[in-house]
Amino acid sequence: MGSKQRFGAGIWHFATYVDRYATDGYGPPRGLLEMIDLAGQVEDLSVVDINYPFADPDLSLDAVEAALDKNGLSVIGITPEIYTRRFAKGAFTNPDPGVRRLANEMINDAANVVRRFGAKYVKLWPGQDGWDYPFQVDHKELWQASIDGVAELASENSDLQFVIEYKPREPRVHMSYDSVARTLLAIEKIGLPNVGILLDFGHSLYGGESPADAAQLAIDYGRLFGMDVNDNFRSWDDDLIAGSVHPIELFEFFYTLRKNGWEGVWQLDQFPFREDAVAAANSAIRFLKSIERALDKLDFEAMQAAQDSHDAVTALTLAREALFGSA
Amino acid sequence: MGSKQRFGAGIWHFATYVDRYATDGYGPPRGLLEMIDLAGQVEDLSVVDINYPFADPDLSLDAVEAALDKNGLSVIGITPEIYTRRFAKGAFTNPDPGVRRLANEMINDAANVVRRFGAKYVKLWPGQDGWDYPFQVDHKELWQASIDGVAELASENSDLQFVIEYKPREPRVHMSYDSVARTLLAIEKIGLPNVGILLDFGHSLYGGESPADAAQLAIDYGRLFGMDVNDNFRSWDDDLIAGSVHPIELFEFFYTLRKNGWEGVWQLDQFPFREDAVAAANSAIRFLKSIERALDKLDFEAMQAAQDSHDAVTALTLAREALFGSA
Amino acid sequence: MGSKQRFGAGIWHFATYVDRYATDGYGPPRGLLEMIDLAGQVEDLSVVDINYPFADPDLSLDAVEAALDKNGLSVIGITPEIYTRRFAKGAFTNPDPGVRRLANEMINDAANVVRRFGAKYVKLWPGQDGWDYPFQVDHKELWQASIDGVAELASENSDLQFVIEYKPREPRVHMSYDSVARTLLAIEKIGLPNVGILLDFGHSLYGGESPADAAQLAIDYGRLFGMDVNDNFRSWDDDLIAGSVHPIELFEFFYTLRKNGWEGVWQLDQFPFREDAVAAANSAIRFLKSIERALDKLDFEAMQAAQDSHDAVTALTLAREALFGSA
Amino acid sequence: MGSKQRFGAGIWHFATYVDRYATDGYGPPRGLLEMIDLAGQVEDLSVVDINYPFADPDLSLDAVEAALDKNGLSVIGITPEIYTRRFAKGAFTNPDPGVRRLANEMINDAANVVRRFGAKYVKLWPGQDGWDYPFQVDHKELWQASIDGVAELASENSDLQFVIEYKPREPRVHMSYDSVARTLLAIEKIGLPNVGILLDFGHSLYGGESPADAAQLAIDYGRLFGMDVNDNFRSWDDDLIAGSVHPIELFEFFYTLRKNGWEGVWQLDQFPFREDAVAAANSAIRFLKSIERALDKLDFEAMQAAQDSHDAVTALTLAREALFGSA
Repeated sequence: MGSKQRFGAGIWHFATYVDRYATDGYGPPRGLLEMIDLAGQVEDLSVVDINYPFADPDLSLDAVEAALDKNGLSVIGITPEIYTRRFAKGAFTNPDPGVRRLANEMINDAANVVRRFGAKYVKLWPGQDGWDYPFQVDHKELWQASIDGVAELASENSDLQFVIEYKPREPRVHMSYDSVARTLLAIEKIGLPNVGILLDFGHSLYGGESPADAAQLAIDYGRLFGMDVNDNFRSWDDDLIAGSVHPIELFEFFYTLRKNGWEGVWQLDQFPFREDAVAAANSAIRFLKSIERALDKLDFEAMQAAQDSHDAVTALTLAREALFGSA
Repeated sequence: MGSKQRFGAGIWHFATYVDRYATDGYGPPRGLLEMIDLAGQVEDLSVVDINYPFADPDLSLDAVEAALDKNGLSVIGITPEIYTRRFAKGAFTNPDPGVRRLANEMINDAANVVRRFGAKYVKLWPGQDGWDYPFQVDHKELWQASIDGVAELASENSDLQFVIEYKPREPRVHMSYDSVARTLLAIEKIGLPNVGILLDFGHSLYGGESPADAAQLAIDYGRLFGMDVNDNFRSWDDDLIAGSVHPIELFEFFYTLRKNGWEGVWQLDQFPFREDAVAAANSAIRFLKSIERALDKLDFEAMQAAQDSHDAVTALTLAREALFGSA
Repeated sequence: MGSKQRFGAGIWHFATYVDRYATDGYGPPRGLLEMIDLAGQVEDLSVVDINYPFADPDLSLDAVEAALDKNGLSVIGITPEIYTRRFAKGAFTNPDPGVRRLANEMINDAANVVRRFGAKYVKLWPGQDGWDYPFQVDHKELWQASIDGVAELASENSDLQFVIEYKPREPRVHMSYDSVARTLLAIEKIGLPNVGILLDFGHSLYGGESPADAAQLAIDYGRLFGMDVNDNFRSWDDDLIAGSVHPIELFEFFYTLRKNGWEGVWQLDQFPFREDAVAAANSAIRFLKSIERALDKLDFEAMQAAQDSHDAVTALTLAREALFGSA
Repeated sequence: MGSKQRFGAGIWHFATYVDRYATDGYGPPRGLLEMIDLAGQVEDLSVVDINYPFADPDLSLDAVEAALDKNGLSVIGITPEIYTRRFAKGAFTNPDPGVRRLANEMINDAANVVRRFGAKYVKLWPGQDGWDYPFQVDHKELWQASIDGVAELASENSDLQFVIEYKPREPRVHMSYDSVARTLLAIEKIGLPNVGILLDFGHSLYGGESPADAAQLAIDYGRLFGMDVNDNFRSWDDDLIAGSVHPIELFEFFYTLRKNGWEGVWQLDQFPFREDAVAAANSAIRFLKSIERALDKLDFEAMQAAQDSHDAVTALTLAREALFGSA
């Protein structure tokens, strides 16, 4: 009897990458259709999150849909590219109102693609919205603009969900949507039902949060609309294979989801710069399945009892027994 | 013509300290009256924040008041000691309801001392409320207890202010009131006018915040009730002399306060483990006065214009010219 | 068929602790004999590392020996307390030559205790040797004094081993022996055969090293004389239960030891502030035994082949299969 | 009377950049000649460090020389591009011996360009040499290859200097030349006079070093061959404008150089992603000149006396008076 869990991935998992040093890229560029075909080779992948607009302006939605169908994939979300050159000084918070308008239009276009594919949400990752230097910005205005930009979109598209993927930094030295609590403050201000959080396990980890605690908080506000996982060394968004560094906190994260009856897709947000993309996805999903089995084995009542007395040693023993088998 | 600014300090600035290695302390123990006399030697100190209950149970409030009077000091806040042995597993969040009750009683006692001294607030620093290990606590319950404990106190003492001093960690590996945004979420839930934030510059810095941004956010919610400063290397609460490592961000912090017309006491929260306490306070206050003068020199309009276009180079130049003189 | 591995612990694992907030301690003080009796209750503990001089000046070496015998324990090392009040500004690097002399004398006394107990080494942990502030010290002189202090001791006691336990910081903001590479530089300068490294897994981890890489480097210089383990969140020396946060890197650390045929005691350096000391030790040792079994299962040849091509995905799969069982 | 100090910059300071998100770059690509013309616009720039091979394969050395002459610039070093796609798994440590050979050849070509321009050194920045995952590499072999690659080059080119620019990480999750101490260990092993260190202030800072201490150590080994400055927030190589965040530690760094009579070029290694490159360079150099003036004002004897007693408060006062003027 296999897993009942559905798995997904950002389609960029199957791209090649550039950075500021390897400006010629970590491999030859790949088109979206090629990435979809790679995604299709992963053992248990059901859904993908796709960037928009497409790098190739001639690529039609029909062609993308055909490629998805061929590979048995559907779309969970669309991620508008509000972090490219024109948005270098911000999308929602850009000092130029014309650029802010452009961001709004691009995201509205992405919203139509969400509708077209029957996807779940528009994903907002405003990576260029923030600051680099002390004294660079008026923090009051910057934060207000961060809120206003999302509020406007949510009002304009009340039939769709918008999810904000917060992150402490990169590419900006400091992002305005930097943490779960800050993002919830904004969502409360916006006050609309269709704005939520996409919690990236790695962003939470390297932002100094406990991802399990962050998930619980977002759930308690009714705003955990999506999530994805990966791993890192707590000081940067390394986007490594899930569970390769922090398997116990990853387990606690999924324990928190199950305890709360949260039933969504388990997604990957990995950047396999130097690894085979399909192998990296399979490696992660196999480990996620072992976490799923560990959740089946875990004694939730005993765990709750240990937690009720803040008994770390017993809680750790229970978690280890479930996750490491005989260990 | 001298400074118009009032300065203050936590009275523990004038204590000696122990840690887990120098268990015999960094100097012979000092009584509260001795600390007050040292505080009185600092060049421009007007107010102090005092821990309660006093280490010496026989010390009377009258004796403390006399010592304060003699040294020309008044009390800005009282900090109940909700982080000693009995609260090792938390004050508001302790798994034992009896200990939670004890915390409430101790803080209510401290509230009476606030009234007695005509002080401004009860300061809550719940340093033992949080967790150490993955899986140790039920995050939903822990956070609810963190909120409930403060809410109960604020309801019971509507004539007084309560300020929460958030901090990422220490002594717990993770504190539940860990950031400005998280604390504001709690305050919004509590919904009472007499709960605010005491923003510690160093806690903000090492929590990955921009202290200027954190101050702005707290002000925008009407909740910046107090603040104190010190410095560190961004990975721990070193409580070094203010301005010794991050003078530019310290300047931006005070710039933000002045821009918003925030007029409170500039307090010190330093731990001079190996330094002369009076010299360390004087060193900090002299630098704070130079920041005050730099604020007088700074061209606020030009700075606003630079910030309106997110022009980091111009903003930095303006800040440097004001702070470094000819530099 | 049980484990062939010998396990040890610093005797302070069984102490109670103070810190700068819980100045009344996390529990009632415990005498050394009481700590030894607790150590004796741990399931598989063979050796301990003992601080010297004893807190109780009336306690005789004979009494300690009797307590150790009763509990089936022997002594692996003696840790002179060169980090208490008198050494607040350093032991080897103290600006006062009289204090440096005192440190030398105390460590020579500790050397005699090593001889008395037939232990393996004197452990040097110069936690107060370093600096706190920019501009505070002359870095050339400080480093030279760090080297000279150890060199003098090693010359005076050529029949004994001295191990340096490096650590990035705490209690000083920066310790002079801060990393494996820096410590090896000093050892090379000293040029004596009886100075080596005690590698603390947690210090390495939070200093930004890979503990496996650090162990390999120390081994390649012939200087890995001892080690101990614990865990943390990479930003501080939390001294948590081994394997509670970073089980995979702990596994890689022991993999490196076995690959190199390093056969020493696996020691614990944990500080169970709020946990039962015996339970915390048992929890760690049980996990260390599961790592030992995982090493028996691991295919070392396949791992070497994966490493020879820097194949992270295959290496991770092999490690996971060995450590997580079916996972 | 103006500054006697010579200033330099990596020519990439005047490039535009890409990263993994803004894959279309933070501005239109610039050719090397264009960058040189921008460098020429900086107020007081004398020397540049140039990447090799040139992005444009048709660009001749003569054309580059003419552009440099026109702008009054000379070459201090050549940085071979051993971190592009073909070197994604390392230059010196690549698992493929053919790629290691390629790296050697490219660097030998760069050595010829050093000779052609009468430059001072070949700069080695092996950013892809290291690892990403636990268990990925054999640490003994990786480190040996790191040493061998440099040793071979230094032997082949005994008439030239090679400088290693260490860095904790990026683009690899961990770089093998990660710190000043580790790099000195390698240089000692190599044992040739023509291998030294180029100390990047920001790399040192975010690696947890004190840059002043790192400079002193490199000087004491006779290996500080070059340096450059910038700034960051201690958790990443942000390459911000020098002095924008850590002016006091920058001052201590230059104080250490002057105290040791180190007289080399003060270089910039900044990445002005969103700033005007010329303005960012001018901003940094103006501040460096103010540091130069502060060094002229600083009482070195009084500072030495304060450091001899580890007197942080006095040392800080002296540093502040020199750097902040009246402050």
